[in-house]
Amino acid sequence: MTTPQFNDTLAVHRYGRRLTEVGFDVDRSVAVGSNFMVGNGKLGYRGTSPEQGAADFVALVVADTYDCADGRWRELATAPNPLFVGVMVDGRRLDLAAALSVATSLDLDRGCFVQTVVHRLDDGASITIEVERTASYADLDLLAQRVVVTGDIGTRVLSIDAGVDRELWSLNGTHLPSIDVERGERTITASGTTVESGTEIVVAAIVATTGAVSPVAAPGRSGTNRFESATWDGAPVVVDSIASVVASTEHDRPRERAETAVIRAANAGYDATVAASVQDWTRFWVDNDVSIGGSPLDDAALRFSSYHNRICTPAHTDRLPLGARGLSCQAYQGSAFWDQEIYNLPAFLFTEPEIARSLLVYRHRTLDGARRKAARLGYDGAYYAWISGETGDELCPDVFFTDVLTGREIRNHFNVWQMHVAPDVVTSIARYVGVTNDIDFLVDHGAEIAFEVARFLRSFVRYDDWKGTYHCVRLLGPDEWHENVDDNAFTNYQAHAAIGFAIDTYEQLGRTHPVPFDSLVERLGLTDDEVDRWRHVRDHLVLPAPDAGTRLVEQFDGFFDLEDISPADLAARLIDPSEYWGWPNGIAVRTQVSKQADVAMLMWLHERRFDDAVAAANYDYYEPRCSHNSSLSHAAYGMVAARLGRAHTALQHFRATAAVDLLNTNHAVVAGTFIGGVHTAACGGTVQLAVHGLGGLGADADELLVEPALPDAWTEMIYPVRWRGQRLRVHVSAAEIVVWSNPANDQAVSVRTPAGNSVVDPGTSSSFASRS
Amino acid sequence: MTTPQFNDTLAVHRYGRRLTEVGFDVDRSVAVGSNFMVGNGKLGYRGTSPEQGAADFVALVVADTYDCADGRWRELATAPNPLFVGVMVDGRRLDLAAALSVATSLDLDRGCFVQTVVHRLDDGASITIEVERTASYADLDLLAQRVVVTGDIGTRVLSIDAGVDRELWSLNGTHLPSIDVERGERTITASGTTVESGTEIVVAAIVATTGAVSPVAAPGRSGTNRFESATWDGAPVVVDSIASVVASTEHDRPRERAETAVIRAANAGYDATVAASVQDWTRFWVDNDVSIGGSPLDDAALRFSSYHNRICTPAHTDRLPLGARGLSCQAYQGSAFWDQEIYNLPAFLFTEPEIARSLLVYRHRTLDGARRKAARLGYDGAYYAWISGETGDELCPDVFFTDVLTGREIRNHFNVWQMHVAPDVVTSIARYVGVTNDIDFLVDHGAEIAFEVARFLRSFVRYDDWKGTYHCVRLLGPDEWHENVDDNAFTNYQAHAAIGFAIDTYEQLGRTHPVPFDSLVERLGLTDDEVDRWRHVRDHLVLPAPDAGTRLVEQFDGFFDLEDISPADLAARLIDPSEYWGWPNGIAVRTQVSKQADVAMLMWLHERRFDDAVAAANYDYYEPRCSHNSSLSHAAYGMVAARLGRAHTALQHFRATAAVDLLNTNHAVVAGTFIGGVHTAACGGTVQLAVHGLGGLGADADELLVEPALPDAWTEMIYPVRWRGQRLRVHVSAAEIVVWSNPANDQAVSVRTPAGNSVVDPGTSSSFASRS
Repeated sequence: MTTPQFNDTLAVHRYGRRLTEVGFDVDRSVAVGSNFMVGNGKLGYRGTSPEQGAADFVALVVADTYDCADGRWRELATAPNPLFVGVMVDGRRLDLAAALSVATSLDLDRGCFVQTVVHRLDDGASITIEVERTASYADLDLLAQRVVVTGDIGTRVLSIDAGVDRELWSLNGTHLPSIDVERGERTITASGTTVESGTEIVVAAIVATTGAVSPVAAPGRSGTNRFESATWDGAPVVVDSIASVVASTEHDRPRERAETAVIRAANAGYDATVAASVQDWTRFWVDNDVSIGGSPLDDAALRFSSYHNRICTPAHTDRLPLGARGLSCQAYQGSAFWDQEIYNLPAFLFTEPEIARSLLVYRHRTLDGARRKAARLGYDGAYYAWISGETGDELCPDVFFTDVLTGREIRNHFNVWQMHVAPDVVTSIARYVGVTNDIDFLVDHGAEIAFEVARFLRSFVRYDDWKGTYHCVRLLGPDEWHENVDDNAFTNYQAHAAIGFAIDTYEQLGRTHPVPFDSLVERLGLTDDEVDRWRHVRDHLVLPAPDAGTRLVEQFDGFFDLEDISPADLAARLIDPSEYWGWPNGIAVRTQVSKQADVAMLMWLHERRFDDAVAAANYDYYEPRCSHNSSLSHAAYGMVAARLGRAHTALQHFRATAAVDLLNTNHAVVAGTFIGGVHTAACGGTVQLAVHGLGGLGADADELLVEPALPDAWTEMIYPVRWRGQRLRVHVSAAEIVVWSNPANDQAVSVRTPAGNSVVDPGTSSSFASRS
Repeated sequence: MTTPQFNDTLAVHRYGRRLTEVGFDVDRSVAVGSNFMVGNGKLGYRGTSPEQGAADFVALVVADTYDCADGRWRELATAPNPLFVGVMVDGRRLDLAAALSVATSLDLDRGCFVQTVVHRLDDGASITIEVERTASYADLDLLAQRVVVTGDIGTRVLSIDAGVDRELWSLNGTHLPSIDVERGERTITASGTTVESGTEIVVAAIVATTGAVSPVAAPGRSGTNRFESATWDGAPVVVDSIASVVASTEHDRPRERAETAVIRAANAGYDATVAASVQDWTRFWVDNDVSIGGSPLDDAALRFSSYHNRICTPAHTDRLPLGARGLSCQAYQGSAFWDQEIYNLPAFLFTEPEIARSLLVYRHRTLDGARRKAARLGYDGAYYAWISGETGDELCPDVFFTDVLTGREIRNHFNVWQMHVAPDVVTSIARYVGVTNDIDFLVDHGAEIAFEVARFLRSFVRYDDWKGTYHCVRLLGPDEWHENVDDNAFTNYQAHAAIGFAIDTYEQLGRTHPVPFDSLVERLGLTDDEVDRWRHVRDHLVLPAPDAGTRLVEQFDGFFDLEDISPADLAARLIDPSEYWGWPNGIAVRTQVSKQADVAMLMWLHERRFDDAVAAANYDYYEPRCSHNSSLSHAAYGMVAARLGRAHTALQHFRATAAVDLLNTNHAVVAGTFIGGVHTAACGGTVQLAVHGLGGLGADADELLVEPALPDAWTEMIYPVRWRGQRLRVHVSAAEIVVWSNPANDQAVSVRTPAGNSVVDPGTSSSFASRS
C-alpha cells in the first residue's frame, strides 16, 4: 500500500478547526467546490466564489427535488444561485484566476465557508474580497453570505452586481426549462418547475449593502441588482445576501415559505442569522468532536470528514436518503447506496443514534419501492434498490458507463445482481438495535424490513437438492469488477445474517410484543411455515469457509482460478487510462485484482466469525491484489488492520480514506460518467475507522467496548460517546484508557477494555492500562 | 429472407453429376480448396492444383492425429503433401494465376477431383495440364493422382518435379518440427512426429511417368524427383502419383504399412487403384442418390452436400468424431460439436444407419472424457465436450475470439455454458433407436450414455423450492450471441427429453434385458432412488410454453425484454465488419437478433409438442430477427417451413444452406479466428432438409412416413430408403407419391402419407395422391 501524501496546497490553520487551501487552480475546481461546500442536509451550496457561474461548477443542490430530464437519470435538481456577487472596479471585472492570492477555508467550528481573495490592479493597487457563507442549521431553508470589499486605493468606480444567477450547472438534462424572476419590495424571487416530476423550486434572496455604494439601474444579469460608487476610496463595502430555497415537495406554498423565511432572516440581519446556525454547530461538535494528539493533519482530516458526514445527512427528515455524494453535486443522483448503512450510519451510532434511526426509518418508508423491484425481477418480498431515492424504486439505469475504446454503452448489472444491498439494510438494523436496544424501532419498522428481506432472500437463493445446499447465483459482490459470480462470500454471509435476524426477530417479538407482532404478521400474510422455510435456508446456505491450510476465504466460487497479477502490472494493460476495468471485458474481469474490499468487508462486518489468524491471512492475501479504486475500500481494510492491532497500517488506510476528497485522489469522471463530488462513504468510513477502528469503540450486548489500536503517530485520542442515553468521554493514550461518565447521566455503564472491565458511575471515571 | 443467388463462376456440367468452377480467383482459394477436396473419412486432401503449396492452402489432413503445438489448440496435424507435381517449360514454371483457362470439377459419381488448366506461352503455344485425383475408399490410406501434360508446340524442354512437398500449411503451430525424407528403391517416404502427442505420421509416395520424360538428377525440392525431356514435342506426358498416409495412432508400424500400401497400389497401377475406389462410390450413390427434377442446380447442390457429408464422416471407425469442418482443414480442430448428432448423423438414418450407429458408439467410447468434464465443473455424470476429439475431453479453450476493436482476448463460454450438447447426444440416441429399433445398441451403449447424462442434468438444474420448479441457469443456447441466459427453451426441452428417455430406458431394459441391465446399473452405482430424483426433475423442469395469446415461446427468460431491431439495422452499428456480435459486448447481446435458429430448433426437433399454429407463429416472429450467421441456421428454419407446408420458403432455406460452401457465403475468419473449410453441418442439414423436410421422409414407431412439401420449382424428387433392413425408393411429384419396395426385401413396410396409409410388400409399389 502506498501512503498518501498530503500535498502542498493544503495548509492547516488553527490545527483542526479551520482547513485552508491556498491558491487557485482551475483543474481543482470540481474538488475545491465540493470540499469547501456548506450544507445542512436539506441543501448543499458548493465552495465556489461569489462571482463564479455554471462553468465553474457553482451549484445549489436541493434535497427532495428528484427529476428525470434526459429520460435516463433521475437526479436532484440544481436551483438558481441566489448568492451571486460580481465586483467591478472601473468597469473591469476582477478575475479570480488572475488574483494575487486566494485562500479558501472551511471554518469547521462554525460550519462556514471563508475566502479571502486579493486582487492586484495594473497600477499596483490592491483590492481584497472577503467572503463568509453558511447554510443555516437553525432554518434549513436559509443561506447567508457576506462579501466585504476593501481597497488600498485612490478614487475608483466600484460596481457590484448581486442577486440571483439563473444559469445552472446540471449534469443530466435541464430540470428547470424556464426560470421566472419576480421582484418584490426587497426580494428577488426566482422559480421554476422540474420538467418530469413537476416540482416547483423557489429561491428568494435579499441583498443589503453597507458602505459607499448605492443602488443604480443598470443592465446587470436579469436576477441581480447593481450597486455602485463612482468615488470609492477603498473603505469597506459590505454585501450581505440572505437567501432561501424551498421545493414544493416540502411545502405546499413554496414561494410564500421562501419569501417569508428570507424576509424574517433579513430583518434579523446577517450576524444573527449566522449566529443561530453556529449555535447548532457548537452543539454538534460537543457531541462529535474527536481530538487526535500528535498529528494535526490527521486531526484535521477527521474533523473534515465529520463535517461532511454531517452536512450530507438529511437528519431533519426520515423521508430522504443520504446520497453517495451528499448534496455536493448531482452525481449518484442524490440517492442512497449500501454506503448509507455500512459507511455513514454507523458513524452516528454512538453519538447521535436518532440520526441512525432516521436513516433506517427511511428504508422502512421505501419498502414499497423495494417490493416493486423484487416483484419486477420475479422475486418475493423486498429487494432494496442499488440506487434509492425518495420512493425506494430502483434509480440505477441499465446502462451508464461507456466503453471508451469503442464508444459503445456498457450494460452493467448493479441494479439487478448486486444483491447484498438488501441484507446490508437488515444487518444494519441488527447492529442499530444491538447498540441502542431500541426495540420500539424494531417493532414499528425493523421487523417488517427484516421479514420482507428474508422473503426476498428465500426466493433469491437456489437450492441444490442433490447436495442439500442453498446458493446465491449471479451476484455482484462489493468488488464491482467481478459481475456474474456465484456464492460471493460476503453476500452469502450477509444474507445468512439477515435471515437469521429475521427469524430471531420473529421468535422474539412473538413473545414480547404479541399485539403489534400479530398485526404485522397478519398484514404480511406471514406464517410459521414460511419462517420454517427461512430456517431451512439459514441452516443450508453455503457459507464459504476459510481453507484449512491457507485460511483463505475464496471471494466467490472460482475466484482463485483467475489470473493472479498485481494491480500495477494489470494497469500496464490499459489502452486508455479512463477505461472501465470491470464488466464485461475490462482488464480486471479475468484476474484476481479487485476494485475494493470484498473479503475484507466480510472480515470486518463478521469479525466474530473469523479468528485473528484467518483475518490476517485474508488481509495479507487480498490487500496486495486490491486496487482500492473505490472510496469505500480503505476504510474496510483499515478496520481489519485495526482489529489485528496493526495500528500503523490502519493509520495508512485512514489517511488514504481521508485523502479521497482532501487530496482528490479519485477521478471525477470514469468511463464517461461524472462521479465527482464529496465521497460521503469515505467521510463516514474515516470517522468509523478513527473512532471504532483505531479508537476501538464498540458495544457487545450491554457492555461498551473500548479496544483501541493507537498508532505511534498519535499521542492520544479523545472522543465523546452518547450511548443508551448516557454521555461519556473516552481518552486513549499509549499509557492508559480513561472513560469519563457525565455527572448528568442516570445510569452506570459497563465498560470492557483489553486491560479489564469496569462499571463507570455517573460523574466518575475509570482508568485502564492500555495494551501496548 | 434474401434468396441466395448461385453465382456466375459456378457452372453445372452434366447436371448434378459433375460440379465445375471455371476460372481462377486467388480470393476464392480457401473456398475452392475446400469445396473440391477429396477424402474418405480418414484423410482429406484439399482441391488445390498439384504445383501449389502451403501459401495456397494445400493440405493433407489426417484423422486421429490430434496434437497441441501452441499450448492452446489441440487440432489435427497436416501431413507432407505427397502429390506435388510442378511443371516447367524451357525452365519456366507455369503460373496458375496467369493461365488461359482453369476448370476445376468434382466428379461426384467417381469421387474424383478433376482439373483442366490451359497455359498460353508467350509465343502463343499452349500447354494443357489435366489432373485427376481421388482418395481411395478401397484402401483408406491411399491417394492417387494422374497429371497429363500436353502441348501444341514445337520442341521444348519439359521439366517435371514430382513427389513430396515438406512445406505445410498449419493453423495453430508447427505439429511436425522436423520432417525426414527417405528414399527407397521406388518410394519417397516422409515422416515426422507431432510435437505434443508424439504421433508419428508417415507419407509414402511412388511417382511413375509415361511419355517422353526421363529421370534426371536435379536440385528439385528435397522430397521430389525430377523428370525431363530436352526435346519435348507436346505429346502427352503422364505423371501418376500413388501415395499413402498412415499415423501411429492407427498402426503400430506406420512406415511399413504406408510403404506396403503404396507399393501394392503402384503395382496394381493408377487405373486399378482408382477403379477400386469408384466401385465403392457407385455403391454409395445407389444407397444415397437423390434426384430432383426441374431444378438441376438444386439437384447438384444436394449431391454436393451428400458427397461432403460422406467424406467428412469417419465411417471406418467408431473411435473418431465427425469434425465441424470434416477433414477439409484444421479449423474446429477436426472435432465433433453438437452438429454431429443434430445435423450429420440423421442424414444417414434412412440410408446407412450403421454409420449413425458408429457415430453414437463414438460418444460411448468418449464417455470418460465427458465424465471428466462434468467432474471438473462440479457436476455429476457426463457432460459432453463442446468440442470433442478422440478422448472426449473438452478441447474448446476458454479464449479464442479477439475483440477486433481493442485487440483484447474475449472469454466466451462455449466450453462451460452451452449445456444442450449433452442432452443433444441422448435425444439423438432416442431418435436413432426409434428409427432403427436397434435395442442392442441401447443395451450396449445408449443406456449408459443416457444414464450418465441424466445424472449430469440432475446435478446441473437448480431447484426453486418455493415454486417447486427446476431451472437451467447460465446457459448458452443454440443462438450463441446470447450467453449467460436462463431457461433457454430449446435447452430445457432437450434436457427434459433426455431425462425422460433415460427413465424410460431404465424402466424398459430392467424388464427386457435384466442381465446386462443389472450389470450396468451395478457398475454405475445407479439406484431406484436416484431414478426417482430424475423423475422429480422431469416432472418439475420448467418448459417455457407458448403464450396463450401470441403463441410465442420465449427464447430464454427475459428475451422479449431485449431491444427489438432487425439484423440489418443492427449491422449498421458495426464499427468494424469483422467484429464478433456476441458476448460480452457485441452489438447483438442486448437485442433480440439471433445468430441462428434457436426457438426454431425447438419447433423442428420437438415438432410433435407444438401444433402448426404455434410453429407458424414462432417461425414468423423469430425468422426476421435471425441473422442466419451460422451455417446451422437455415436448415432448421427450413425444416419448420417444410413442416408447415411452406414449400417455397423451405426451398429458399435449402438453397441458403447449400450456398454456405458452394457460394462461400460465410466468412473464413471471424474475430481473428480462422473458421474456413467445408461446413459439414450445412452439408448434413442440406440432405436432411431435402429428404426429411421437402421430401417428407420420417418414421413413427413402425411406420415409415412420407409427408412431402414439394416446391413448385421441383417437378419431382426421387430418393432411396434403407430402413430396418428394407430397401425402398420414394418418388414424389405434384401428382402423386409412389413407394417402391425392392424385390429382395423380406418384409412388408407400412407407409403413411397425407393421402393415406399402405402396406408395401416386397417387389410391389403403392401410389398415393400428393397433397397439393
